[in-house]
Amino acid sequence: MNAGTRFFKPASFSLRAVGLIAWVLCCVLFASSGVGAQSDPLPSWNDGPAKKAIIGFVQSATDTSNPNYVQPEARIATFDQDGTTWVEQPMYPMMLYCLERVRLLAKEKPELQDTEPFKSLLSGGPRALGKLTTQDLEMIYAATLTGMSVDEFNREVKAWLETAKDPRFNRLYTELVYQPMLEVMQYLRASGFKTYFVTGGGQDFVRVYSERVYGIPPEQVVGTMDSVKFGYGADGKPVLTKEPKLLLSDVDEGKPEGIHLLIGRRPQAAFGNSTGDRQMLEYTKAGDGPRLAVLVHHDDDKREYAYDSQSKIGTFSDALMNEAKQQGWLVISIKNDWKRVFPWER
Amino acid sequence: MNAGTRFFKPASFSLRAVGLIAWVLCCVLFASSGVGAQSDPLPSWNDGPAKKAIIGFVQSATDTSNPNYVQPEARIATFDQDGTTWVEQPMYPMMLYCLERVRLLAKEKPELQDTEPFKSLLSGGPRALGKLTTQDLEMIYAATLTGMSVDEFNREVKAWLETAKDPRFNRLYTELVYQPMLEVMQYLRASGFKTYFVTGGGQDFVRVYSERVYGIPPEQVVGTMDSVKFGYGADGKPVLTKEPKLLLSDVDEGKPEGIHLLIGRRPQAAFGNSTGDRQMLEYTKAGDGPRLAVLVHHDDDKREYAYDSQSKIGTFSDALMNEAKQQGWLVISIKNDWKRVFPWER
Repeated sequence: MNAGTRFFKPASFSLRAVGLIAWVLCCVLFASSGVGAQSDPLPSWNDGPAKKAIIGFVQSATDTSNPNYVQPEARIATFDQDGTTWVEQPMYPMMLYCLERVRLLAKEKPELQDTEPFKSLLSGGPRALGKLTTQDLEMIYAATLTGMSVDEFNREVKAWLETAKDPRFNRLYTELVYQPMLEVMQYLRASGFKTYFVTGGGQDFVRVYSERVYGIPPEQVVGTMDSVKFGYGADGKPVLTKEPKLLLSDVDEGKPEGIHLLIGRRPQAAFGNSTGDRQMLEYTKAGDGPRLAVLVHHDDDKREYAYDSQSKIGTFSDALMNEAKQQGWLVISIKNDWKRVFPWER
Repeated sequence: MNAGTRFFKPASFSLRAVGLIAWVLCCVLFASSGVGAQSDPLPSWNDGPAKKAIIGFVQSATDTSNPNYVQPEARIATFDQDGTTWVEQPMYPMMLYCLERVRLLAKEKPELQDTEPFKSLLSGGPRALGKLTTQDLEMIYAATLTGMSVDEFNREVKAWLETAKDPRFNRLYTELVYQPMLEVMQYLRASGFKTYFVTGGGQDFVRVYSERVYGIPPEQVVGTMDSVKFGYGADGKPVLTKEPKLLLSDVDEGKPEGIHLLIGRRPQAAFGNSTGDRQMLEYTKAGDGPRLAVLVHHDDDKREYAYDSQSKIGTFSDALMNEAKQQGWLVISIKNDWKRVFPWER
């Protein structure tokens, strides 16, 4: 101990003691004044069984005295994207992006105008998208989502998102997000949950905007995954190139498989809206304790869309609804449960 | 407003105001007393350029007034495991686990004793492991790491880790972790970094103990990844089964590829020790700003091991050391930079 520390130590100690007392005082006062305790975490939800079930689940999971308390590290919640957190009708936004890329590619390579499936797509537009076979789609994905560096791809998607608009709402696609689901995500995060996307959409596509639009960072996006290849650019610097080699198709069985590969824990809560989410909801619900499995039902054609088994996009079926009832999944009615659908609604 | 709220509201407001003042007071006092500012985040490191470089990197990254400040969401640090955070000599622990599983399997299926590569492995023991071809290894991995449910696999690995010991140190493998690296991980996390494993080892294998031993949760383990298959068990419940289908070999080029697939951001800092980490270090260092690339050099045969290019396990080479110097990677000398190697050392 030198003269300096001898001189300063008692003073520093007493300052710390005062600080500690002030800290304890402040904690006690804040707790007793109940700041925030009465605020509604889900203001865009109508009061009813759905809102009550979500809040009840979160309150049990975070209450150490509750038998259904969930350790903070196990608090994982997964969300499908298309139709669960943003509009998927009349066509998934990523497929509209692919269509736009095919149009641009055809300017560079006019031979595409005479090659299927590009020919049909260029002449038919968005409507042709619905008629493509799985093989056609794979060719279109390979041509538009792979072959470039990861950085280049990010720039291209970002540029498209800044201008492309949905014709019905005349809004950017990133504005067609469901305000009630943004609130659920925010509420879960504020309660110590990690929120993940588990989407059939391209993993790299969703990562471009997931943090900005939903608060979900790129490392928490699980999606349909193509291989990337490490190499060196002309300047000798490392480059990752997107390759047309499918590693994971993140729909149906692929959702719980993707959850295991990228997260490695079974979710406590999962949110979906279509038959493509069935296995994720089953897998979630099969865990110990009161897991939350949620199915968004599109039944509001005035404010959004109403579609059931007849729709090719976002397939829904009577069997799915029956399973939801039998398995105790929470079914959300957009018409009845959501006070407001979009953030920009008055 | 009812009588109750009219009565309580002013009282609650004044309590809140007092709380706020106490809070501000406490912040000011804590800041001025400098609590924690002088404590050493890396007590098991000798003072020297390596320790200084790591602390300097973290301080710049977290100081908003520093031009090298890193936004909290971009603070990603990746660690190789074998030879970087625990002992990999004379053989990777996971391979010793596979050997043990082959012995158990041979009791159930005696025909393995006459089938290569199992025959050589059963008669030769750990030494035979070093002589296996890549194809042999794939057969052994398939037989021991796949074919069971994810839950079963976790139980088997957990049971082995509780008893299997390293003969030289007479310690569990999970005790052969490097205390200085545990401190670096802890220091990075306390500074807002997410710490990830990016290991050539099996992703599911490392996940079994990564949280308990290193504080790294399963969702932050990137490793060599086999496919899993979703299905239903005899009881009708969902089951994930580990399949002998390689999705990602997480060594060499596979490391930056795995980082992109599972994290989607370039790390700010990466730690490795062998040629298998080269591309991860290159990829990290090629990012904007002063990224930290660290190479652990095993040069201490008294306390741990000393090995260079002649070792089959944990390959090191003169070329790697030269690249480290040219590219400004930080080379750690275990002999000179680490005051203590293991947590249990006096």
